[in-house]
Amino acid sequence: MSAEVICVGTELLLGDILNSNSQYLAKELAALGVPHFYQTVVGDNVDRVHQAIEIAATRSSIIIFTGGLGPTPDDLTTESIASYFNTPLVEFPEVIADIEHKFAQHGRKMTPSNRKQALQPAGAALLPNPTGTAPGMIWQPREGLTIFTFPGVPREMHRMWRDTAVSFLKTQGYGQNPIYSRSLRFFGIPEAALAEKVNHLFNSTNPTVAPYAGKGEVRLRISARAANEAEANALIEPIVQEIKQIAGVDYYGTDEDTLASVVGQLLKAQGQTLSVAESCTGGGLGQMLTDIPGSSEYFLGGIISYADRIKIDLLGVNSEDLATEGAVSQTVARQMAVGVKAKLGTDWGVSITGIAGPGGGTECKPVGLVYIGIADPDGGVEGIKYQLGSQRERELIRHMSASQCLNLLRQRIRI
Amino acid sequence: MSAEVICVGTELLLGDILNSNSQYLAKELAALGVPHFYQTVVGDNVDRVHQAIEIAATRSSIIIFTGGLGPTPDDLTTESIASYFNTPLVEFPEVIADIEHKFAQHGRKMTPSNRKQALQPAGAALLPNPTGTAPGMIWQPREGLTIFTFPGVPREMHRMWRDTAVSFLKTQGYGQNPIYSRSLRFFGIPEAALAEKVNHLFNSTNPTVAPYAGKGEVRLRISARAANEAEANALIEPIVQEIKQIAGVDYYGTDEDTLASVVGQLLKAQGQTLSVAESCTGGGLGQMLTDIPGSSEYFLGGIISYADRIKIDLLGVNSEDLATEGAVSQTVARQMAVGVKAKLGTDWGVSITGIAGPGGGTECKPVGLVYIGIADPDGGVEGIKYQLGSQRERELIRHMSASQCLNLLRQRIRI
Repeated sequence: MSAEVICVGTELLLGDILNSNSQYLAKELAALGVPHFYQTVVGDNVDRVHQAIEIAATRSSIIIFTGGLGPTPDDLTTESIASYFNTPLVEFPEVIADIEHKFAQHGRKMTPSNRKQALQPAGAALLPNPTGTAPGMIWQPREGLTIFTFPGVPREMHRMWRDTAVSFLKTQGYGQNPIYSRSLRFFGIPEAALAEKVNHLFNSTNPTVAPYAGKGEVRLRISARAANEAEANALIEPIVQEIKQIAGVDYYGTDEDTLASVVGQLLKAQGQTLSVAESCTGGGLGQMLTDIPGSSEYFLGGIISYADRIKIDLLGVNSEDLATEGAVSQTVARQMAVGVKAKLGTDWGVSITGIAGPGGGTECKPVGLVYIGIADPDGGVEGIKYQLGSQRERELIRHMSASQCLNLLRQRIRI
Repeated sequence: MSAEVICVGTELLLGDILNSNSQYLAKELAALGVPHFYQTVVGDNVDRVHQAIEIAATRSSIIIFTGGLGPTPDDLTTESIASYFNTPLVEFPEVIADIEHKFAQHGRKMTPSNRKQALQPAGAALLPNPTGTAPGMIWQPREGLTIFTFPGVPREMHRMWRDTAVSFLKTQGYGQNPIYSRSLRFFGIPEAALAEKVNHLFNSTNPTVAPYAGKGEVRLRISARAANEAEANALIEPIVQEIKQIAGVDYYGTDEDTLASVVGQLLKAQGQTLSVAESCTGGGLGQMLTDIPGSSEYFLGGIISYADRIKIDLLGVNSEDLATEGAVSQTVARQMAVGVKAKLGTDWGVSITGIAGPGGGTECKPVGLVYIGIADPDGGVEGIKYQLGSQRERELIRHMSASQCLNLLRQRIRI
C-alpha cells in the first residue's frame, strides 16, 4: 500500500513555477507513515496523463494528483482520469451553487467556463474547496486503487488536504505508527557550526536528528517513530533538552515559532509595547511583527522613514548628525529608535537603517551594511552594526536585517 | 528527441528539501528548445532507479539525472545506471587526483569513501565538477539514448550544466530553434473571465498562449518557437497587442513587472512622490514599494498606525469619527490617506485599514473587509471598500489589500 504523487502542469515542465506541492505532500505522507516511492510531473496533455496513470496504477495503491483542475481548456486532469477508466463525467450541482455563491460574494456572475469544474467521474466523492472554485475528488475507480485530485494552487491544496485527505487516510489505517517530529529553531549560528556541536546526535536512529538551513536560520529536526504521542515525546524530549543546553541563546523557538512570535510572547509576558522605525526594510519589520494574529496587544505601529527628511521631521533625527555621519550610521540608528519610541509612546523602540543594494554602496559603506537601534524601557539605547554581506541580494539583505532586529530584541527582552 | 529529468533522493520523497533542480533544468531545456514531457523523483534504491530508467528509456532520448552521486553508501545513481545496462564501472584516475587536490586545499586527506566518486560506467565521458567532489557523466549506453548525471547540490549542478551540457546539446542541434516567451500580467480580473475574453487564442500553435493564476493576479504567457529573437518578436507582438486591447485596464505589466514597479514608473514619469498609512498590512505595502531598487526617488515613507491611538496622534484621524464609524471604515481610510500625505508632504497619500483575521470580524464587518484611501495631488480623496473574502487566510488578505491599493493607485496615476 504505497502512494505516489502526479503533478500535472505544463508550467512545471517549462520551469515557470517551483513544484512546492510535491514537497508538501511528501512531508504529509511521511508524517502519516504512508510509503511513498515516486513523484511524476507531466504536462497538460491527455495522452501523457493517461500514460502516467498507467504506470502509477501498476505500482501504487494511492495516486495523488495536483493541478489541472482550473476552468480553462488546458485544465484536463479530471477528464483524463475519467477517460482512462472509461467513466463518464457527471455534473455536481452543489459545486455550481458553491461557485455561483463565491462569485456573488465579489459581486460577479459565474462564467460559463467554470461549469466544467463541477464535473467529476461518476462514483467519485467531492473534496470541497473552501477557498477556491476547483473542488477535488476521492475516487476508487477499481478495487485497491484510490485516486485523489487537488488544485495546483498551494494554499487551496493544503487546506483541502488537511480537511479531508488526512482523515480519509486515517480511516484506512494510516497514521497509527506515524513519525512524530519536533523542529528546534536557531538564529545567529551557521549550520556547520551548530552541526559540529551536536555531531554525536546524528547517528541516533530513533529519534533521528537532522539539520536544515533556511533563510539565515538553522533548524534541527528530531523525528521519532512511536505508537503514540506520549511514547514519541519520551524519546524526543531528552534530546531536545540536550540540544537546548548545548545551543544556549542561539535556540529561539520550536516548530511554528517565528522570531516575531517569540518577541510577541515576551512582550506580552512583560506587558510592554513596541514601535518600529524602518529605513531600508521599508515596512518589512512591521509586516513580520503583524504577521502574528493578536499582535495589536503589544505592537502599536511605526514610522517608515525611507527619505532622510522623514527621519528628521518625524523621528527627530539631528540633521547635522545625519549630514556628517550619514543615514546609515550608529548615531542615526540610535536616534531613530529613541525617536519612534517617544513619538508613539511605547516601552521599546527599534530601528533599522542600512544599504540593501544593489546600488548605493561605497567602499566604506558597502551594500549589506546595516545598523539596528534599540531603545529600551529604562531609557537605555544601543546601536549595533551588522555586515550582512555584499554578495547577498536586496531581498535577502532586507529579510536578514529585520530578522537580526527581532533576534536582538528577543535577547534584550529576555534579560 | 525529447528529454526527461529523473531526480534521485530519498530526502525529496520525505519532503526534507524542495526540488529546485527540476525547475532549473525545465527552464534550461525550454530555453534550448529541447522537448521535455516528464519529470520523475525516485528514492535512493537500485530497483526503483532501474524501473525509472526502464520507463524513461522507452519514451525519451535524453535522460538527465540529478542526485545520488555523493560518497555515502546511499548514493547509488551511477552504479544503478551501469548495472541496468550491464556495464562495468571503471575508475577514472583523474577524478581521484582531483578529489585529493580539493581535500589538500583544506588541509585534509581524501576519505576512502570518496573513491567511489571516481567510478563511472565504461565508455562514459566525465563531466568535471569544478566546485565539488562529485563529477557527472555523459554516456550513450545504446544508439539513440544519452544519459547525463549531475550532483544534487544546486550550485554545483548549475555550473556543470552551463559548462558542459549546454554545449553538448548545441552540438546535437539544439538551441537553434529555442522558445521565446513573454508574460503579460493582469490584476483585477479572475482567470476564467480573462480566459473567456481571449479564448480564441488558446488554439494558436506558434505562438502558444497559456493562462496562469497567481496570488490575486493572472498571467498570459505567449511562447514562440523561432530561429532568433526578431522572428519570435514578429510572432509574439501582434498577439500581445491584441491581448492588451482586449484586456484594457486589467493589463498592468510584462515579464518582471510588479504592481509596485509599475506604480514606481508612473510616479517617476509624473515626478510625483508617495507616502503610505498602513493599519492591517502593518508595513507590507511599504515593503512592496521598497522591493524596487531606486524607490527612494518617489517613495518617502509612511506611518504604520496599527493602534487606533496612532491613527489619531500621528495621522490626525478624528477621534469621534473613529469611535462612531470604527477604524475599518471609509471615513477613517480617507482621513488616514489625507493625514499621511500632509504629514510627510508628498503628492499622493494612500491608506489601508481592514480586518485581516482570523479574529476581529463581526457580522457587519467580517474578516476580509478592507478600505483603501487615496489622497491625490489635486486635493481629491477617495475611500474604496473591498470584501476580500472571509475564508481567505490572514497572509493572503494582507497581501491582497496591499496589491489592491497598488492597483488602484496605478489606475489613478494613469488618468
